[in-house]
Formats: sequence, structure tokens, C-alpha cells
Amino acid sequence: MSKITALDTYDVRFPTSRELDGSDAMNPDPDYSAAYVVMRTDQPDLAGFGLAFTIGRGNDVQKAAIDALADHVVGLDLDEVIGDLGGFSMRMVGDSQLRWLGPEKGVMHMAIGAVVNAAWDLAARVAGKPLWRFIADMTPEQIVAAIDFRYLTDALTPEEALTMLHTMAHGKAERIEQLLAEGYPAYTTSPGWLGYSDEKMQRLAREAVAQGFRTIKLKVGMNVEDDVRRCRLARATVGPDIAIAVDANQRWSVPDAIAWLRRLTDVQLKWVEEPTSPDDVLGHAAIRKAVAPVPISTGEHTQNRVIFKQLFQAGAVDLVQIDAARVGGVNENLAILLLAAKYGIRVYPHAGGVGLCELVQHLAMADFVSITGKKEDRAIEFVDHLHEHFVDPVVIRNGHYIAPQTPGFSAQMHAATLAQYRYPDGPVWCEPLVTATAQ
Amino acid sequence: MSKITALDTYDVRFPTSRELDGSDAMNPDPDYSAAYVVMRTDQPDLAGFGLAFTIGRGNDVQKAAIDALADHVVGLDLDEVIGDLGGFSMRMVGDSQLRWLGPEKGVMHMAIGAVVNAAWDLAARVAGKPLWRFIADMTPEQIVAAIDFRYLTDALTPEEALTMLHTMAHGKAERIEQLLAEGYPAYTTSPGWLGYSDEKMQRLAREAVAQGFRTIKLKVGMNVEDDVRRCRLARATVGPDIAIAVDANQRWSVPDAIAWLRRLTDVQLKWVEEPTSPDDVLGHAAIRKAVAPVPISTGEHTQNRVIFKQLFQAGAVDLVQIDAARVGGVNENLAILLLAAKYGIRVYPHAGGVGLCELVQHLAMADFVSITGKKEDRAIEFVDHLHEHFVDPVVIRNGHYIAPQTPGFSAQMHAATLAQYRYPDGPVWCEPLVTATAQ
Repeated sequence: MSKITALDTYDVRFPTSRELDGSDAMNPDPDYSAAYVVMRTDQPDLAGFGLAFTIGRGNDVQKAAIDALADHVVGLDLDEVIGDLGGFSMRMVGDSQLRWLGPEKGVMHMAIGAVVNAAWDLAARVAGKPLWRFIADMTPEQIVAAIDFRYLTDALTPEEALTMLHTMAHGKAERIEQLLAEGYPAYTTSPGWLGYSDEKMQRLAREAVAQGFRTIKLKVGMNVEDDVRRCRLARATVGPDIAIAVDANQRWSVPDAIAWLRRLTDVQLKWVEEPTSPDDVLGHAAIRKAVAPVPISTGEHTQNRVIFKQLFQAGAVDLVQIDAARVGGVNENLAILLLAAKYGIRVYPHAGGVGLCELVQHLAMADFVSITGKKEDRAIEFVDHLHEHFVDPVVIRNGHYIAPQTPGFSAQMHAATLAQYRYPDGPVWCEPLVTATAQ
Repeated sequence: MSKITALDTYDVRFPTSRELDGSDAMNPDPDYSAAYVVMRTDQPDLAGFGLAFTIGRGNDVQKAAIDALADHVVGLDLDEVIGDLGGFSMRMVGDSQLRWLGPEKGVMHMAIGAVVNAAWDLAARVAGKPLWRFIADMTPEQIVAAIDFRYLTDALTPEEALTMLHTMAHGKAERIEQLLAEGYPAYTTSPGWLGYSDEKMQRLAREAVAQGFRTIKLKVGMNVEDDVRRCRLARATVGPDIAIAVDANQRWSVPDAIAWLRRLTDVQLKWVEEPTSPDDVLGHAAIRKAVAPVPISTGEHTQNRVIFKQLFQAGAVDLVQIDAARVGGVNENLAILLLAAKYGIRVYPHAGGVGLCELVQHLAMADFVSITGKKEDRAIEFVDHLHEHFVDPVVIRNGHYIAPQTPGFSAQMHAATLAQYRYPDGPVWCEPLVTATAQ
């Protein structure tokens, strides 16, 4: 009987602020980072990998929160983890003392998500399947058993979820073939960072279209005149057939969002992302009503299934992002995907960052195969940086994510990356700047 | 010019689980704890004190989060801190990298709250006033300048807040005299912990009434038959004139809460606290509508002003708790008190724990003097343990909190307590159990 022998954690940071990659109205100088976790077993070649994504300062706090979970994990039989992924999640989510630090939100919840995701990675590796396929091969009963329905039953009961999953079991094999042949649509935020010049934005937008992307996203929210100019310029650059989304990264209060968005109606936006606080369900509903038919969206910072549930109940959004490393791991994201399916809300997963593309592709693909059967008028965000640090990096072809084939959840980083970018003592952070930027 | 020279933090834990003090349906075995912070200055006799309350495991994570704020604090001129308490808060709340860990929720936000509260403590000490009086002596303009109105302006603008505060400036001196003479009403949860026997609950309830408390609170949510029995027994014990509130500590999903509360209607509850997830604004509204006229309440785990705003906008609650150490400190609690006043929602502050009584009394008293002018049909929770560890402990007389007179925010602990209860190396945690429980 194999055992979990260690929960090793790493504070890994990339000095992205030196190039203004990832800059937006709320995050002017992020250093994309990961609190990275390795769940080791007594088999030297078998471990599970997970991460919480942060943007620099505080990544040590995030790492400390993962360390605080070691007692729930180390010493367990491997089967206790991968044989009952619902129970494994509840060990941590249900720890009454740790709950006080949330409950189910922020640093502690992201830490649980990282460890839970590492367990799913481990389970998929043992099964010899990429995670999306591992989920696709679960029975409806197994999926429902992995989900915590507390606080959900006024919107979705286990019985309803079972019925939905049984209905979608038809045609699963065909959808797996279709996914393997076609991939899953991607969209790109690469042209849109707020720190880029108009020329760089236009060049990258043209390149994106040439690469097969059908949707691009621009950051907005710093200056309304700049936003109007950049959005119009982007529309002129890509033409009428490419969708343009914008992302305000929580910049506005409700009245500001309404006034600002009324200036952008002529651009025909595909969606407006994070117009205000991610906690403000009623605020999103008010904005959506005021600027209709402009589609409203949020989700990358939505803390848990309870807020997603309310976004759907309140008619606050036209579509949502999910994030693989924000909520309590795969289990909670399955709950969110089922809720979205029940309410008919399309999901455009959030990615970028460190490893978020690698992770979230599996969830979107599992959704297509097992939950909604749909992948058109949906797309996974793609940003083309930092993939080289991953053992099984995403593959994008003609604007689509190609379905991963390697067993696991694709979160494993190269050992050399951990050595090089470890904060604060890795060479990138210790050596003179000229060396670091030459990486 | 004085400077902030250090931000020292302590992991302090009390072994309360050994006696089942503080046990409820969600928290069966809490070890009441504090991530305690001392903001030192270059004057040896001048420091600010604050804390984040936790219930045991994870207190080290909370401490690490406070440590992560040191760079925002150490080296500042004293005047930069106490001369601009709004700006001081925004230094941390507005740190774009740290925001990613919330935003404005959970571990990182409670850490900011602890440091912000330490700054208010410092400011009140320099002014030579207890905090409630320090706030009472602020002008409306100074109070408004301390508040972050982002995400609030659809419910409360700075101009409205100013008008409210100017209106209430009349009669302030009389209310200060009244507060000093009468104190502020308290209610007690001491009889109601779920781990207590019926006999202990009845004895403590009788004692509470004899001590002058007009409201008691019982924990519920583990077993409905037990709850019905205990509530009826409590009603028979205290008679019809003492109010009985119940607290489910987030135990139920929405349909469960409705079914459960329909069993308790004959007890004439003063309020039902935390029937479901603190994040579920619409869930509270649904429960309130279904069990009307039973008053519904939440707040001790309400993460920030954005959720409070929605509770009020949605008509989800009849009254709320505030907590001095859950949100981003005094500044955000002032915003919440102003919002509550605007919507006509009564505030029954949450206390107990470690130092929460000491802290929150100041906010309730400031609310009476400067914001609502009301203290009847309101009360501050009181639990009679752990006060001996504080330099300026609360004083309760005839069911009322007596207004503190010592300068500051009353959060300072005795040096001996820090030495004795420091985790994991204090004697209470190292020595054999028999020694520890004999403290």
C-alpha cells in the first residue's frame, strides 16, 4: 500500500514586471508567481503537482497556507486520496479551525485548491490518463460524489446533477473523438496589456488573427479616452468578424462602470470582464441591466461556488470565467460547471499567469465531454508566456488548445525552473538585473 | 519626527478546546487564538497593538500574512500613519500584488485589518483618548476621508455620508455624557455553547439574567430535536421578557434552514444568526422571506463592505453583526456602520473570541455617538473568558459595557500572556496537560 510521504512547497516567482507583461488597470506591475506544491509518495517516480497562482508579494503567505495543510495529507494511504477525492477535499474544506480563515475564500481556500488539484493530478497519473480524460471516464455517480453540495441545493441538487450527467453520457465517445481531432477554441489576451503601445497592440492583434484566434481581449479601465481609442483601433485592425472582449479588472464602482461602458457601445464588445468587485453580485446585475445588450462577465476572482450560484440566480452575467487555481480545486470547479450548465451560462475559462492555461484546459475539455457537450461560442484564454517552464506545456494550433495526452493535470514544472526562479534565493532574484532579464 | 521601527508579530493560542468553551455546530473544538501585532515606534513607551482572531490551526498563516505587510509600515514617519489613516489603509488594501490574494477577503484582508487597527490604536494613544472617543472627536470630513468608497457609491456616496455625519453632530456632547453614565447594552452567549449540558445551559442562563443581561444567545444547528428542546427549556428558564437569539454558524443550506427554522417559531426568537454561508446574500434573502417574521442576521464572517452593502440592498437581513477583526480595520467598519445606518439596519456587534469584546465595544460606542445616536434595541455580544489577558479588559456592569477610559483600542495583551501562550513553544503548549489546564 503506497503512502503520501511529503507535501513539499516552493515559492517560485518570475520577474514579469520588468517587461510589463500582464499589466492592467488594477495590476500595473505583476511578478507572476506560483506557490507550487508536490505531493510525494513512497514511489520515487509517482507524485502529484499543483499550484496557487499569485502575482508576486504574498506568494510566501500562499506557500505558508499550503504548508499548513500537510497534517491533513502526509501519512495518508494513496487510496484514501485518489480513491475518494470528495472525501479528500472535505478533510481540508471541513477543518473547522481552518474554516475560520475563510470560510472557503482567499489564501486558505486557494491553498486547499492547490493540494486538491495535486491529488487529482496524482489520481490521473495513476490511471495513466490526462485529467480531462480521467474526468470524462468517471461515472455520473463518481462525479457527484466528488462535489460538496452544501450551500448549493437551492440552485442544484445532487439528483439534478446526476440527471444532467446521465443525459450527457450519450455521445461521450463521439465527443472525445471530436475533441482529439479539433481541439478546443482559444482566445488571446496577448495584444491587450495596458502597458503596451498602440503599435504593439495592433501588431499583436494582427498576429493573433493570423494565428487563427477568433477572439482577442483588451485591458481597459485606466482612462476612458484611451480605452475608446484603443478599442476602435483594435476593431479597425481586426475587422468586424473577430470578437473583441475587454477586461476592467475590477476597476470601477457600479455607476462608473455604467458611464464608462456607455462610451464603448460602438465597438460591439463580445463581453466586458470584471467591471467591478468580484464580490458584487447585485452590482454586476445592475451594470448588466443598465448597459444591455453589452454582455457582462466575471469569474477569475470569484471566490467559490456560492458566489457563482448567486451570479446565475441574479441574472448578473451573460457568461463567466472559471479559474483552475482560485477555488477549492477540481471538485468545486465541477460544481461550478454544473451550475453554469443548469443556468445556460457559457464558460470562457481564465488562464495566463503561471500554469493556468495548462490546468484549466482540462476542465474546459471535461465540460465539453461530460457536462455541456458544447465548445462553440466558448473559448479558453491563452497568453503565450511562461509555458516553457512546464513539463507538459499547452499546445495551441490554429487558435485551438490541442487535447493533452500525457497523464496528469499538466501542472508539473521543470526542476531547473524551481532552482532558477525560487524566491528569494534563486539566481534570477539574486544576480544583477542584466543577467536576470537575459534569461 | 518619530518613526515606525518594527512590526512584531506573535502566534498566541489558548487551549480552549480542552473545556469545550466556544463549541458550536461548525466549530466543535476551537483553540481561541490571535495573530497579534505590535507596531513599534522609536519611542520605547509608544506602540500600537492589533490582532486577528482565529480558532487555532492556521494562526501561523495569519501571522505570516501580517509579516508580509511589514514593508508597507516599517520606516514610515509616525505622522504618515496617524495623520492619514485612510491613506495608511490604502497603502495595503491597494497593493496590487497582495490584492490578488483576496481581493479584500480572508487571510490577507484580516492581516490588513490587524495592522490598520494597530494604527488606530497608536493614533488614539497619541491623542490620549480611548478609541471610541477619538472617533467621536473626528470631524465628519475626517471620518469620510478615512473610508474607501470604491464599490459603495451605488449605495452610499461620500456626500451622503457627510450629510449623515453632520446631522448627527448635533447632540454629540450629550450622547458622550449618556454613554459614560449608562454604558452600552451587552448580550451574552455564555450559556449557549453546544457542548454544554441542559443543566449547565439553564444555570448559566439564570445567572445571565441575574447579572442584568436582557438577551441571551444559544448555538443551534447540530440536531433539530435538541434545538427545539434546548430553546424551549431556555424560554421556560428566562421567561417571556428576556430575548433569546440563536446562532447556526453557517450550518445549513437554504432549504434546510427554512425547514429547521419552521420548527423553532414558537420560541419567539430575537434573531437567527448565520443560517447559511456568509457569502450567500440571496440565500439569506430567501430564508428571511420564507420564515418571516423571524429576524435573520449575519455578519461575523462577512468578508468586507461589498457583501454588507448587498445584504442591505437585497433586504436579506433584519440586523447584522460586525466584527472588529474580520474586515480591513476601523476604516472599513466605519463604512459598514454608515451603510447600516443608511439602510436602517441595527448592529449587534460580534464579540467573544480573543480580544473581540475589547475591540468592538469602541466601534459600537462610536456608532452611538457619531453615526446613529441609538443604543437601545442594540447590544454587543459578551462572552466572559480570556479578558484577563488584556491590559485594559472590558468592564461589564448590570448587562452593559462600561465605556473604556484608557487611551487606545484596548487590544494590548500582557507580556506574561505572550510568553505563556506563544505557540508552539510557550509553556502551555509544551508542558504536560495537567499543568496547562491548571492555569
